[in-house]
Amino acid sequence: MKIFDMPGFPNPLRIRIVLAEKGLANQVDFIKVDLPSAEHKQQRFLEINPTGTVPVLQLNDGTYISECTAITEYLDNLNGDPTLTGKTPRDKAIVHMMQKRAESELIDAVGIYFHHSTPGLGPAMQAFKSPDWEGRDEWGIRQRDRALGGMRYFNQVLSQQPFVAGEIFSMADITVWAGLLFAGLANIPIPHECTALIAWRAKIDARNSVKQPA
Amino acid sequence: MKIFDMPGFPNPLRIRIVLAEKGLANQVDFIKVDLPSAEHKQQRFLEINPTGTVPVLQLNDGTYISECTAITEYLDNLNGDPTLTGKTPRDKAIVHMMQKRAESELIDAVGIYFHHSTPGLGPAMQAFKSPDWEGRDEWGIRQRDRALGGMRYFNQVLSQQPFVAGEIFSMADITVWAGLLFAGLANIPIPHECTALIAWRAKIDARNSVKQPA
Repeated sequence: MKIFDMPGFPNPLRIRIVLAEKGLANQVDFIKVDLPSAEHKQQRFLEINPTGTVPVLQLNDGTYISECTAITEYLDNLNGDPTLTGKTPRDKAIVHMMQKRAESELIDAVGIYFHHSTPGLGPAMQAFKSPDWEGRDEWGIRQRDRALGGMRYFNQVLSQQPFVAGEIFSMADITVWAGLLFAGLANIPIPHECTALIAWRAKIDARNSVKQPA
Repeated sequence: MKIFDMPGFPNPLRIRIVLAEKGLANQVDFIKVDLPSAEHKQQRFLEINPTGTVPVLQLNDGTYISECTAITEYLDNLNGDPTLTGKTPRDKAIVHMMQKRAESELIDAVGIYFHHSTPGLGPAMQAFKSPDWEGRDEWGIRQRDRALGGMRYFNQVLSQQPFVAGEIFSMADITVWAGLLFAGLANIPIPHECTALIAWRAKIDARNSVKQPA
């Protein structure tokens, strides 16, 4: 398998953590996509993923899979023992619900703020942004507030249960963790009263898959 | 089981079609949520679903599941024979990839345009919107353009294969179908050159689950 991504970036890290959790890292070749040069918005990359995002997984049969949830479904089910996406119908539903909340209320909200209301990845990406990016994009500012609301929501969740989707670690934990990483890069600090979220983050930081992802 | 929704609305219809596809409609009681009155943004509903969206599925054990993908994962796996979300790791990945594209590039883009750049559901919802909703929200206008791009993308996909995720009907078809319905309600017509998309839509319109959803 091949993965097209850029090391250290929040969404690529999600899949690198999945690979480490599943013991699959040595089955993947990584191909670097130069995000600050907007390589992911050029025709050559758009033929691999028309939505112009990383990471993308290429299966051994040539099929390209984009979107972290889809890539995680593939990798997690490959050995017939899904540990990150839920085993029962109820668990699958809860993991997917929390995964979507982690995206819409945190990591994607941070992404919109970062790319459209800050200088983001720099000048080569300007052509692919909101025209009024220079700190003034109102929608992006509201997405920053949404991300802060998301942190408060996950803090409440994690004050009642050990992991985002309940009793066990799942892909939703990976997404919230990467969302907090991205928020830090975008200068959106975790509100200091979110003590359960901060304690959970320290626990996730200590996992082998997170300390040494693929 | 219970479903909190409002009949005829695009996202509720997605799950009503899933119920019909899976033969589960008679196992569900429907509880109406008054969207134009902003009932889904009030504290009582937010305790059921903190993101303030419909539909929400309540399981017989009391658990609330929101987000169409999560609800579909539950209903589709309930009988151990997932027909809408993929059986193999590869099929699961492709369905989830196309589901996410159908959301981000079509139905969610239409939703942002409708709610933030048109009068949307009317005056009671104004407090929950972009402050400059009156046809001027630039982000919403760009989401309309994104939805048109999504239609062109799915037209290309459907000129090469019978269904959105390949050879068989899946939840991604339901999402694209509901996205086109929503686009019609929001006065975003399908570009006339999208002949494969228009032909596919007629085929989906004729399915029993779509003609007579739950």
